[in-house]
Amino acid sequence: VAKRLEKFKTTIFTQMSSLAIKHGAINLGQGFPNFDGPEFVKEAAIQAIKDGKNQYARGYGVPDLNSAIAERFKKDTGLVVDPDKEITVTSGCTEAIAATMLGLINPGDEVILFAPFYDSYEATLSMAGAKIKCITLCPPAFSVPIDELKSAITKNTRAILINTPHNPTGKMFTREELSTIASLCIENDVLVFTDEVYDKLAFETDHISMASLPGMYERTVTMNSLGKTFSLTGWKIGWAIAPPHLTWGVRQAHSFLTFATSTPMQWAAAAALRASESYYVELKRDYLAKKKILVDGLKAVGFKVFPSSGTYFVVVDHTPFGLENDIAFCEYLIKEVGVVAIPTSVFYLNSEDGKNLVRFTFCKDEETLKAAVERMKEKL
Amino acid sequence: VAKRLEKFKTTIFTQMSSLAIKHGAINLGQGFPNFDGPEFVKEAAIQAIKDGKNQYARGYGVPDLNSAIAERFKKDTGLVVDPDKEITVTSGCTEAIAATMLGLINPGDEVILFAPFYDSYEATLSMAGAKIKCITLCPPAFSVPIDELKSAITKNTRAILINTPHNPTGKMFTREELSTIASLCIENDVLVFTDEVYDKLAFETDHISMASLPGMYERTVTMNSLGKTFSLTGWKIGWAIAPPHLTWGVRQAHSFLTFATSTPMQWAAAAALRASESYYVELKRDYLAKKKILVDGLKAVGFKVFPSSGTYFVVVDHTPFGLENDIAFCEYLIKEVGVVAIPTSVFYLNSEDGKNLVRFTFCKDEETLKAAVERMKEKL
Ligand SMILES: CSCCC(=O)C(=O)O
Ligand SMILES: CSCCC(=O)C(=O)O
Repeated sequence: VAKRLEKFKTTIFTQMSSLAIKHGAINLGQGFPNFDGPEFVKEAAIQAIKDGKNQYARGYGVPDLNSAIAERFKKDTGLVVDPDKEITVTSGCTEAIAATMLGLINPGDEVILFAPFYDSYEATLSMAGAKIKCITLCPPAFSVPIDELKSAITKNTRAILINTPHNPTGKMFTREELSTIASLCIENDVLVFTDEVYDKLAFETDHISMASLPGMYERTVTMNSLGKTFSLTGWKIGWAIAPPHLTWGVRQAHSFLTFATSTPMQWAAAAALRASESYYVELKRDYLAKKKILVDGLKAVGFKVFPSSGTYFVVVDHTPFGLENDIAFCEYLIKEVGVVAIPTSVFYLNSEDGKNLVRFTFCKDEETLKAAVERMKEKL
Repeated sequence: VAKRLEKFKTTIFTQMSSLAIKHGAINLGQGFPNFDGPEFVKEAAIQAIKDGKNQYARGYGVPDLNSAIAERFKKDTGLVVDPDKEITVTSGCTEAIAATMLGLINPGDEVILFAPFYDSYEATLSMAGAKIKCITLCPPAFSVPIDELKSAITKNTRAILINTPHNPTGKMFTREELSTIASLCIENDVLVFTDEVYDKLAFETDHISMASLPGMYERTVTMNSLGKTFSLTGWKIGWAIAPPHLTWGVRQAHSFLTFATSTPMQWAAAAALRASESYYVELKRDYLAKKKILVDGLKAVGFKVFPSSGTYFVVVDHTPFGLENDIAFCEYLIKEVGVVAIPTSVFYLNSEDGKNLVRFTFCKDEETLKAAVERMKEKL
């Protein structure tokens, strides 16, 4: 294996999902629904296949999908973007992240990350040869330590990576935090790469896109995807929205990472993004009910549950149960209790930082969530 | 844009396909069929979507597809591989190439390429920080200059990249060439990365997989895809087959480039690969008829046509028509004749080398091929 990837292990999601299968455990680990996506979106994919939309798409996206993404972005942020020059369709947000790093970051560039962070950020920054500066968000509120952020910025800082709503904590960056980060970026000529795949799962306040802050669009790459919002995580349709000069870098990397994304799935994604607002209202209502089952259950079991205001994840402190760290706790939970969670130490540069926390997902049907809670009540 | 991608332009395929649309020209440029893939494969995708196979696949592939790939590889090469440890499903062969380079090549490693070459090789080697040594294959036979190859190998040579059947020339590496390369690789402890996406389009002799040569499997990454063989280029299902120690590197890069590939398409790909042998026989028969139309036509128009024994491409010398180079010729061909071809200078490190050659594809229905020939007869 090349040095750039030497330190990385099999992704925790793959590890945990295969353990779940092996032990017949209830999988509240990897974030994928155990229910299906909407019929109208599946129908659109089937129709596209039948209609012969089966050859290479335009590299940066089927025109109809680029337009649908632009329309949705306008509804969400008020920003008007050129679908042909400012949007790149990718094979999931994971590819958008990789293309952004490889397309815009040079070796030695400094990039600021907030820990805990989704594992691909670190790996793709390593591929790009970036120097990572990591700032830890601490429970209970996982607020941004502004002074620490200020002193992390140097003349070599190229970008700050944001993820809101935030995986794994469910934190949503506040308008105040975003404004402060924005001012720092403008002042120091720093880019923002923002992963907003959970934007439609914002339960308490509306999601705020960094790109919508004054002066920020021109220095922001906004990444999103279909999978979380439409419960179709396996379709792997993502995108990056950025001004033309940044889109150029993203597209150049994308051209040579995958060239183009599955054509029939793109047509279906276009139909999905044109869903009426009621789809999103129902989605949120359903997830709120699921969240209540899981959070109430985890509290009743005896966990300390940290507030999660977005995503379909919730982070808890497992130390009441006396296991030495998050890995040991998750192993015990799989083998003795029959439930899978995700240890959070893998989301930190310094794994000590996450050793008290584990993440559960509530993107499962209510029965499954109840069954998991029952198992924990009985056996923990 | 990051320095690693600075020298690259919009891919020639994207450029030419959009010019085709703009000028209403017949597109014999980018290699995608203008006919649809087989019904049974499309049906399998539709069934997978209906059956709710819509969440994340296992990162390195849906188990059934990994098995189908192993079965096919055994039929084709006699080699038995472990579907769970030696196969990685990727988002098209393009991603397999990127993951192989980023997962196995370190900055400063030397990699030997044969020109003309598919553009993503150079770009992904640049992403990996490799030092490229390029050996030019010359018309008419595009044979490997063995002495030149020998002297290109140094103690820093990490890999040789092979593409057989070869895009753009249609050359197939002979058993003798492959054996010589194999000996050199074993002697000098060099890997082979081999792109064999056109293996089922071998018209004169059987395709030979480098991995099947004695002692080579353990040092070879074999890359292939669904798109060309099943006329479904837009589905973007590819794979890399390699021994476990090389697969590890490929998978680590793949995990962070795309994580996983479209789940329903993978199920359909498994069905496709289990097609009876008669499918491949018919495919070849159909393509031979198309090839004859195009090659006879190009000769009648006055091109010097180089022999192509595999792929759905053919390369010609355009100089009888007096345009200064391949780019100028292709521009004239689009605007004045209404046919799109691909200039080959983009497939060389030194663009001078390709300036007399252009590539046509015959992956179009017979009527389209005949119409293109008619236009050239009239207007060239
Ligand atoms: C790409 S697998 C991980 C899914 C996910 O986003 C998560 O579980 O955090
Ligand atoms: C990935 S687009 C290029 C298609 C192709 O392989 C070719 O035309 O050479």
